[in-house]
Amino acid sequence: MQTVKFQNPPSIVSTYTIVGPKEGEGPLKDYFDLILEDDMWGQESFEKAESKIQEEAIKSALSNGNLANNDIDYLISGDLLNQIITSSYTARQLSIPFYGLYGACSTMTEALSLGAMLVDGGFAKKVICATSSHFSSAERQFRFPLEYGSQRNFSSQWTVTGAGATVLSADGNGPYVTYATTGKIVDMGIKDATNMGAAMAPAAMDTLISHFNDTGYSPADYDLIISGDLGIIGKSIVIDLMQKEGFDLSEKFTDCGVEIFDHKNQDTHAGGSGCACAATVFNGYIYKEVLKGSFSRVLLIATGALHSTTINQQGESIPGIAHAVTIDINKG
Amino acid sequence: MQTVKFQNPPSIVSTYTIVGPKEGEGPLKDYFDLILEDDMWGQESFEKAESKIQEEAIKSALSNGNLANNDIDYLISGDLLNQIITSSYTARQLSIPFYGLYGACSTMTEALSLGAMLVDGGFAKKVICATSSHFSSAERQFRFPLEYGSQRNFSSQWTVTGAGATVLSADGNGPYVTYATTGKIVDMGIKDATNMGAAMAPAAMDTLISHFNDTGYSPADYDLIISGDLGIIGKSIVIDLMQKEGFDLSEKFTDCGVEIFDHKNQDTHAGGSGCACAATVFNGYIYKEVLKGSFSRVLLIATGALHSTTINQQGESIPGIAHAVTIDINKG
Repeated sequence: MQTVKFQNPPSIVSTYTIVGPKEGEGPLKDYFDLILEDDMWGQESFEKAESKIQEEAIKSALSNGNLANNDIDYLISGDLLNQIITSSYTARQLSIPFYGLYGACSTMTEALSLGAMLVDGGFAKKVICATSSHFSSAERQFRFPLEYGSQRNFSSQWTVTGAGATVLSADGNGPYVTYATTGKIVDMGIKDATNMGAAMAPAAMDTLISHFNDTGYSPADYDLIISGDLGIIGKSIVIDLMQKEGFDLSEKFTDCGVEIFDHKNQDTHAGGSGCACAATVFNGYIYKEVLKGSFSRVLLIATGALHSTTINQQGESIPGIAHAVTIDINKG
Repeated sequence: MQTVKFQNPPSIVSTYTIVGPKEGEGPLKDYFDLILEDDMWGQESFEKAESKIQEEAIKSALSNGNLANNDIDYLISGDLLNQIITSSYTARQLSIPFYGLYGACSTMTEALSLGAMLVDGGFAKKVICATSSHFSSAERQFRFPLEYGSQRNFSSQWTVTGAGATVLSADGNGPYVTYATTGKIVDMGIKDATNMGAAMAPAAMDTLISHFNDTGYSPADYDLIISGDLGIIGKSIVIDLMQKEGFDLSEKFTDCGVEIFDHKNQDTHAGGSGCACAATVFNGYIYKEVLKGSFSRVLLIATGALHSTTINQQGESIPGIAHAVTIDINKG
């Protein structure tokens, strides 16, 4: 069993999202709480800008929920940068007991899974889960300095600039986190850092199958099944792989990285990616549509490509991981 | 309250430690399960060697406990390398649901805290917590390529090569994890990457004071209070800081980084450091002495310097964090 069913499902009581200008011109622009005009936001470096974005998303999620820092028992966060500096330097400003995670772009659901366990287990009344990414800090760390003006491969994805934060509470009227399916590392041998969707797709399939087997749910029990940042290529691979395993996802399944940009007009090639992709689409679009009643039950499955330039240059392939959480208007 | 008291304290049912040749010549050599003759261990790179060390430590902790991979509900691990590649590539070999952490050298107690919550909360019967570090992979990532032959500052510490793994179980006869005090990020402005002990000391103090205030324990209630890798300088700072706060640690307190090497004869300057410092001293020396009856109650407080070359070069200081767990022969 890779899946936990929560006995007293934690309630999502507040969220907040901040995105950069490009994301703010995309199809989901009306769902984000704050759209920046400048992705540097007055800071001196991409990394410091990303930290400010994550910090403001957390502070705003707290104030949106009429909460102070000391109402929160744990901050659970991570990001793409080496030594998760965005999250560490954000945590430095907040004085909340802090668990730092590294799950690449799976961080949002890694944090929600652990956060829900800490609340349901009685170790916390409230936790805040957060993550962020920034196109420019990610490009120069993982690929090329932007100043090179390198051409982008058509299978490459566009790292979302933004942050999302979620407050989970032992009290509240939902929506609730009812299940968490924790992923295993799956690596089918992809070595191409410009084709992350293909590297993550087998991990997404593995977690989806475990989720359906463990819970007894089928795709028909969900109004929406949405992966984090498989992009256009990874999404189609998962639909194919799942079809072969007897699960028809075609009606219910999409991907945050597919939805966040208008790929034809925004030049984002295979789709959005980055920790903030699942974080902003979940805390913006999905959460608000669940509150409106458009979706009663959603499976969010954030996907991570644990890509490292160091070990990739030593000939290693890129391992993938995917963690899934069920968001339900009922306690399940 | 930063401290959790476990209702059904998880039992430590198996541990395993592997260290490199230098650690195997130090004062704690008789406590390690495996001492390598060559810290490359037949691998082509420092990073791949570190992964093999962590993987073998986990597999051996499982076999020591007569456990198979599928007896373990969660693997909770992290390390110092970018994208926690040691832990990710190790997890790839094990097929256990995986939570990746980044807490720098605080990882051992970050993992034990979360692991104990997952077991006590009823989400897992058994979890394995692990971490590792490698002198050569850490030096080239955080400081200088070894080939430069840079002189080492006297305040610098020596990253321990090794790994430690701990199996926590809902069943077992102890020792038990009875309390977990989760740290906040504390940063007093140290910018010197060759003086990590000073950067971490205020975080250790902050967590120690919270622990004593939350639990009602005083230093006298412990047989041993041991930090992760403050080293000689950080240890003396903590003793001074705590003295000013009214806590006399002088009789009970030491540091894994102080104990693991013979600093005069092993040229390790201010002491050992790295995730494996707390991990090998805890899973080797402390665990075995607790089993022998030398210590009935130990406070392990692993300390992390969230040092990043990227943001340090942008003028930022080094944030510290420290997480504490109580190990007790009784259920508390």
